[in-house]
Amino acid sequence: MLEELKAQVCAANLALHAAGLAILTWGNASSIDRDEGFVVIKPSGVPYEGLCPEQMVVVDLDGNVVEGNLRASSDALTHLVLYRELESIGGVAHTHSIYASSWAQACRSIPCYGTTHADHFRGPVPVTEQLTPTALEGDYEVEIGEAIVRAMQGIDPGEIPGILVASHGPFTWGESAEQAAQHSIIVEQIARMAALTEGLAPTAGPISGQLRDKHFLRKHGAEAYYGQMQ
Amino acid sequence: MLEELKAQVCAANLALHAAGLAILTWGNASSIDRDEGFVVIKPSGVPYEGLCPEQMVVVDLDGNVVEGNLRASSDALTHLVLYRELESIGGVAHTHSIYASSWAQACRSIPCYGTTHADHFRGPVPVTEQLTPTALEGDYEVEIGEAIVRAMQGIDPGEIPGILVASHGPFTWGESAEQAAQHSIIVEQIARMAALTEGLAPTAGPISGQLRDKHFLRKHGAEAYYGQMQ
Amino acid sequence: MLEELKAQVCAANLALHAAGLAILTWGNASSIDRDEGFVVIKPSGVPYEGLCPEQMVVVDLDGNVVEGNLRASSDALTHLVLYRELESIGGVAHTHSIYASSWAQACRSIPCYGTTHADHFRGPVPVTEQLTPTALEGDYEVEIGEAIVRAMQGIDPGEIPGILVASHGPFTWGESAEQAAQHSIIVEQIARMAALTEGLAPTAGPISGQLRDKHFLRKHGAEAYYGQMQ
Amino acid sequence: MLEELKAQVCAANLALHAAGLAILTWGNASSIDRDEGFVVIKPSGVPYEGLCPEQMVVVDLDGNVVEGNLRASSDALTHLVLYRELESIGGVAHTHSIYASSWAQACRSIPCYGTTHADHFRGPVPVTEQLTPTALEGDYEVEIGEAIVRAMQGIDPGEIPGILVASHGPFTWGESAEQAAQHSIIVEQIARMAALTEGLAPTAGPISGQLRDKHFLRKHGAEAYYGQMQ
Repeated sequence: MLEELKAQVCAANLALHAAGLAILTWGNASSIDRDEGFVVIKPSGVPYEGLCPEQMVVVDLDGNVVEGNLRASSDALTHLVLYRELESIGGVAHTHSIYASSWAQACRSIPCYGTTHADHFRGPVPVTEQLTPTALEGDYEVEIGEAIVRAMQGIDPGEIPGILVASHGPFTWGESAEQAAQHSIIVEQIARMAALTEGLAPTAGPISGQLRDKHFLRKHGAEAYYGQMQ
Repeated sequence: MLEELKAQVCAANLALHAAGLAILTWGNASSIDRDEGFVVIKPSGVPYEGLCPEQMVVVDLDGNVVEGNLRASSDALTHLVLYRELESIGGVAHTHSIYASSWAQACRSIPCYGTTHADHFRGPVPVTEQLTPTALEGDYEVEIGEAIVRAMQGIDPGEIPGILVASHGPFTWGESAEQAAQHSIIVEQIARMAALTEGLAPTAGPISGQLRDKHFLRKHGAEAYYGQMQ
Repeated sequence: MLEELKAQVCAANLALHAAGLAILTWGNASSIDRDEGFVVIKPSGVPYEGLCPEQMVVVDLDGNVVEGNLRASSDALTHLVLYRELESIGGVAHTHSIYASSWAQACRSIPCYGTTHADHFRGPVPVTEQLTPTALEGDYEVEIGEAIVRAMQGIDPGEIPGILVASHGPFTWGESAEQAAQHSIIVEQIARMAALTEGLAPTAGPISGQLRDKHFLRKHGAEAYYGQMQ
Repeated sequence: MLEELKAQVCAANLALHAAGLAILTWGNASSIDRDEGFVVIKPSGVPYEGLCPEQMVVVDLDGNVVEGNLRASSDALTHLVLYRELESIGGVAHTHSIYASSWAQACRSIPCYGTTHADHFRGPVPVTEQLTPTALEGDYEVEIGEAIVRAMQGIDPGEIPGILVASHGPFTWGESAEQAAQHSIIVEQIARMAALTEGLAPTAGPISGQLRDKHFLRKHGAEAYYGQMQ
């Protein structure tokens, strides 16, 4: 079942690895079939070398395995919260990429210091609150998902396609697994540029809302004029 | 038409990508046929993988498409301002490369800290002023071009073959698309070295004008003795 | 003899090189056959290009060569101390990887700043004391091993699978040479993230013991639920 | 003539490029035949892609071309000073590698912060004085060579196989072109580690002379026990 989605999800996982964002087994991507209500996700702890579509695991939105012989990613429950709560998204990716994870470890959101950032995120890349001791003792991966959802309250996930989980690393999303993985690449780039920008100009501030919106809307929404007409 | 120029422009775009300066679709190179008054440029939002000369778009100096089925780069109007105003140049490149963009985001020109810089730029790599709110509301890409031209007033574009657009990233130029792309590679290198130099010597100052000119003129102009006789 | 172990040790050495942790001849990995009491290790000063299992050297736990025409790694005596004193380990790796060596040169242990670290190390990556002048004059490589063992006193090597030798670089271990090499890769990643974290948040502190243990125990021990059931 | 030496020099130049130390045409390696008194060196401004032994230029110690259709590297006169004054060396390499050049631009010698450094340099990597205005007006490349020789006075070039030219970049040497190129790789590594070390421990000092000598002499000289017996 869902052969095409499995191929897409496998390709997105491989893209994370090829881009250097996920070494060893440190990352996972998934996608949802909204009609079926099924999510396809990477199996847990399986290396990227040799990863193939048949290894992808199909789960329902409650986390029950629908198909697959392998255990789903240990982060699957986080993905599922995002699919349940952010209804416009079609794919999710998670990595421990160096620069984005360092911002996460610093428990800082990434300010919008330039147009590269604004082309893809219409504002800072947010960071979640720390989980409480009670949440850590609870259903941990679900709690992470809920911390993300709380931090995204009032924010359009189409305008802010990713977040940093405090002390952990980035989660990104998009219309598809491919786009979610691409947003992981983008978060890593802007995380790196932002760190360098602060080194070069310790008192740097974010760009104006006008410049930010000019760039974001050049690429997104009804007035976009970047790229080719579909 | 302009088959050779299309091949050169395509190759220059691929060179930006191969050098790691332009990921996803973040960069573009162009070249001008001064006799025809036509500019060949990368299409907008098309990935580098599989990019081929036939996809290049031909526009006139007013931005009218002369040939090509794809939309020209969204930065085409900036390129055109440069071709109109900097009459000695034959190629333009634009990237969001990490280090040069970080200097741009810091809104700082890159001081000439060493001979690697001076071999290619006879002075700092300038940074433009920020666009005004009015300019941002206007013909944005043209305004960027004009901000570049203002910052280049009184400077020989053959001696300073590139600039940083504030909060954005580098534009470079040269006699050809190939040389423009090479200058993008060079700006990234000297941007990186300059950031490291400041880390190692926070009070570092630029090299002397004499050392700078010695190096620049060793490679450029009538007295150059670097490289092979043409 | 020990053909399979030689192949594993050779592969682990090549993995260090492939991961960019060991250039030129700067690194070595070994493994022990606990039944025989023999250790297989890389030969000294032999480049990774073309390294093959037949070149591996077999020594006993006192350092006597049991098989092999080449001299064992100059660090062999350090490996042997670790095998004698840390009885649970099956493989050892040593590199001069950039970030981990820089922490070692700074004579600092790596604080546990995030979950990437906690997934693999249940606490800081320790750093040894400096060797005394007397130790430096003595059996140097044995003294390094003993400094590591002293720093590991009261620490489970399964929970802290590596250490930094002050002013020198990382040694890591694991159940096998492959796992030891993997821990070298991990130490380099977390060393890099930790340096960046301090740049972004100079007053950053380690994550809570609860979050650290949650992550470590998600991957290790009886309650682990990461990865596939064996 | 000197076919073998040309092949070695070509290979050393390609090694600089393959190691990422020399992009575009930014680097050169040479070697000397002491019996003939001839030096083989890279031609000026020729890219590394496709570089072949036949393109190497043969010059005598006064800089006269003995064989070759191409102009010798513009840095040839610097190499020749080194061959004349440092009689024990057989090869020279020069690059604009990122980290070593940044230390050069900071006009700082690289302190010996760890054993990776001490394994190859028995003390700091020195930096030359700045050239005087008069020297800059004179025979520039010869003046650079003489500045290097002055900075090396009283230092054994076998113990300190390279130097930073202030505001410029590294020159390294060795018994052969291959070894000179290898020392360029090493200088870049230790330059990078040293910069990171200072970031992690701003008050870091060099390692003790005893530890430094222990490591240097483990690899070099009569008592060396690293590597295989020749």
